[in-house]
Amino acid sequence: MEQITLDKAVKEIGPLDAAAVRRAEARQSSLTKPPGSLGRLEEVSVQLAGIFATEKPQIRGKVVIVAAADHGVVAQGVTGYPQEVTTQMVGNFLRGSAAVSVMSSLLGVRQIIVDAGIANHIQHHPDLRTTCAGRGTRDITRGPAMSAQQAELCVTAGVNLALEAAESGADLIATGDMGIGNTTPASAITAVVTGRPPEETTGRGTGRTPDQLERKIEVVRKALDVNRPDRHDPLNLLEKVGGFEIGVLAGVVLGGAMMRRAVVLDGFISGASALLAHLLCPAARDYMIASHRSEERGHQAVLSHLKLFPLLDLGMRLGEGTGAVLAMPIIEASAACLSRMATFDEAGVTDRDRKTQPEEGQ
Amino acid sequence: MEQITLDKAVKEIGPLDAAAVRRAEARQSSLTKPPGSLGRLEEVSVQLAGIFATEKPQIRGKVVIVAAADHGVVAQGVTGYPQEVTTQMVGNFLRGSAAVSVMSSLLGVRQIIVDAGIANHIQHHPDLRTTCAGRGTRDITRGPAMSAQQAELCVTAGVNLALEAAESGADLIATGDMGIGNTTPASAITAVVTGRPPEETTGRGTGRTPDQLERKIEVVRKALDVNRPDRHDPLNLLEKVGGFEIGVLAGVVLGGAMMRRAVVLDGFISGASALLAHLLCPAARDYMIASHRSEERGHQAVLSHLKLFPLLDLGMRLGEGTGAVLAMPIIEASAACLSRMATFDEAGVTDRDRKTQPEEGQ
Repeated sequence: MEQITLDKAVKEIGPLDAAAVRRAEARQSSLTKPPGSLGRLEEVSVQLAGIFATEKPQIRGKVVIVAAADHGVVAQGVTGYPQEVTTQMVGNFLRGSAAVSVMSSLLGVRQIIVDAGIANHIQHHPDLRTTCAGRGTRDITRGPAMSAQQAELCVTAGVNLALEAAESGADLIATGDMGIGNTTPASAITAVVTGRPPEETTGRGTGRTPDQLERKIEVVRKALDVNRPDRHDPLNLLEKVGGFEIGVLAGVVLGGAMMRRAVVLDGFISGASALLAHLLCPAARDYMIASHRSEERGHQAVLSHLKLFPLLDLGMRLGEGTGAVLAMPIIEASAACLSRMATFDEAGVTDRDRKTQPEEGQ
Repeated sequence: MEQITLDKAVKEIGPLDAAAVRRAEARQSSLTKPPGSLGRLEEVSVQLAGIFATEKPQIRGKVVIVAAADHGVVAQGVTGYPQEVTTQMVGNFLRGSAAVSVMSSLLGVRQIIVDAGIANHIQHHPDLRTTCAGRGTRDITRGPAMSAQQAELCVTAGVNLALEAAESGADLIATGDMGIGNTTPASAITAVVTGRPPEETTGRGTGRTPDQLERKIEVVRKALDVNRPDRHDPLNLLEKVGGFEIGVLAGVVLGGAMMRRAVVLDGFISGASALLAHLLCPAARDYMIASHRSEERGHQAVLSHLKLFPLLDLGMRLGEGTGAVLAMPIIEASAACLSRMATFDEAGVTDRDRKTQPEEGQ
C-alpha cells in the first residue's frame, strides 16, 4: 500500500457530516424510548453518525494499536520498573497474556502491536509491526528526545498504520501504549500544550512515594527548561520532549480521522498524543472518543483541554489501550441502538403524551 | 423443574467464599500490571471469585430477566405514557427491537421476557414467560397494591426464574423492568426502606414538568399515608405499595444469590427490588453488582443504602435492563483479566523495584 505523507493526511481531514448528524438526532427522537433516556449513548451515536456519514452507523471491525517504545529519561529514576519491562511486555502482548490482550480477545478487538522504538533487542515475531525510528529516545533532561526527522517519521508511520487498519475494515480504532517511563514525556507535553505547571500534569505513574513524585515533577521542569519546546509547533514539541510511541499514536489519531473512523482514546499517554494530533489538525478532535478517565493526574488536564468527556471512570491507570478496548462495547451498543431499534411507528408503540389509541377502548 | 419456596431460597443464601477471595487478591497482585492499575475491575473480579468460589472466575452465560407489569396508580396521572405502552413494549422486546433487545443481541446476552402482571390482554408468544399474579396492581393511593398472597407469589416466581436461568448456564443474571408508572411504587418503597422523605426518592420518571414532579411526590406521600407499610416486613411493603415486576425482580436477586451467581442490577426499579431482597436476606447484597447510576433521582438513595458503587454513569434512565446489559462486558473483562492474564513469573516480566535481571547486562 502506498504510504501517505503527514501533510496529505492533515489536509484530508474534514468536518463531521452535518446532514447525517441532523438525521441521526431526528432518528434518536423517534426510537421507542423516552427522549434522552439513553444519556451519553445518544451523544456517541450521533457523533458516529457524523463520522461515518450515515444515521445508521455500523461497527464492522475494531482494532487497538498498541505502540511500544523506550525513554532515555528513565536514567533520572522516574519509574519503578526497569526498562527491560517494555520489551518483556511486548512479548506478553504477542502471547495474548497482557491485560489489553485478554480484553481484546474477549471483546472481539484485533490487537496490532508496534515496536515504535524499543531500546533493547527484541526478537522477530510475525505479529510484531515495526515503525522503529530509533532505539529509545534520549534523556530529555539533557537535550531533545529525538531528531526532527525522527519526529516526523513516527507520526507519519502512525498515520499509515491507521490507514491500513481502516482499509482492513476497522471502524473503531483504539490507541494503546507501552513504554517504561512514558508518563514523564506525556506530562511534559501536557504541561506545554495546556499551559499548566508540571505539578498539575505530573502524577505518580508507577512510582510509589511522594518523594518519587516530587523528583518526577523536577525532571519534567528540567526537561522543559533545557529544551524550551515551541508550544505552537507540535512536531517540535515531540522532538524536544516526546516519545516514539507518543508520536506514532498522534499519527494514528490523524490517520483514523482522515479515514473517517472513530478514534477511541485510552488514558494519559494516548491523551498526550491526542493533544499533538489536535495541534496538527484541530478538526481531528471530532473523531475522538474519550474512553475513560485515568487515575493518572495529568489526564484530567488533557480531557479539559480537548473538551472530551470520558465514558468510563473506573480508577484505571494501566495504559496498553485497556480503557479504550473496555469502552468499545459501549460505543458499539450506542451505534446498534441508533441503527437497529424500532421507531414508535414501526413498533406500533404509543408515543408520550399522545392520545390513547381508540382500539384500546380507554 | 421443582419449584422452590421463598423461605428455602433465603435459608440457602450463604456468604462469599472467603478463601477464594484471598486467593483472588493474591493472584491479582501477581499479574503483569502495576498493582491496582485495573481499578474497579480488580474489585469486581475479586467479588466474582468469592461468588463462584474460584480465583479463576469464568462467565459462561449471561441473561437479562425483563419483568413487565402494570400499575393502578397511573390513574393518578403520574406518567407521560398511556398504560397500553407496557403491552406494546413487550411486543417490541419479543421482536428484538427495543433498546435492551438490541444491546442483548449485540453483547451475547439472552433476554427472558416475563409478564409479571400486565393489565391489558397480551397475545401468547412462545418466548414470553408468565408469572402473572394479577392484571396490574390496584391504585396505591386508595389501598394496597396487591394481596399478601400475590406478593409472596411474585417473589417466589422470581426466585424460580433465576434458578432456571442459572441451571441453563447463566453466570451473570441481569435484572430489567418494564411498567408504565413503575417509578412511583419504586419511590414509595425506597422512601420506606431508606427512611428518606418522598421528595428525595421521587424523580420525574417520564414526566416533563416540575408540576408533574410535585404531583408525583404528593401521590407517593398519599400512598404511604393510606397504606402505612411496615418497613421491617418486605413482603408487607411489596403488598402495600409495590408492583408485580418489582416483586419478581426481588425474587430474581434472591434466586441468583442462592445459586451463587452474580446479579447485575439495572437502575432505579431494579434497585427498589434489591432493597426488598436485601431486607428478606441481607447476605444477598454480596451477590449484587450495581451496573450504572441512573439519572432517576431515587436511585442514588438506593445505592447509598446498599453501599453499592455503580460501574457506569452515563446519564441513562431507560430501565429495561439496559444499564445492566451494558455493564456485562466490563464485568466479563474483569473476570477474564483475573483468570487469563499471565503472572510476572509466567511471562518472565521483571516486577516493580526488583533488580534488573543479570542477563540484560544493566
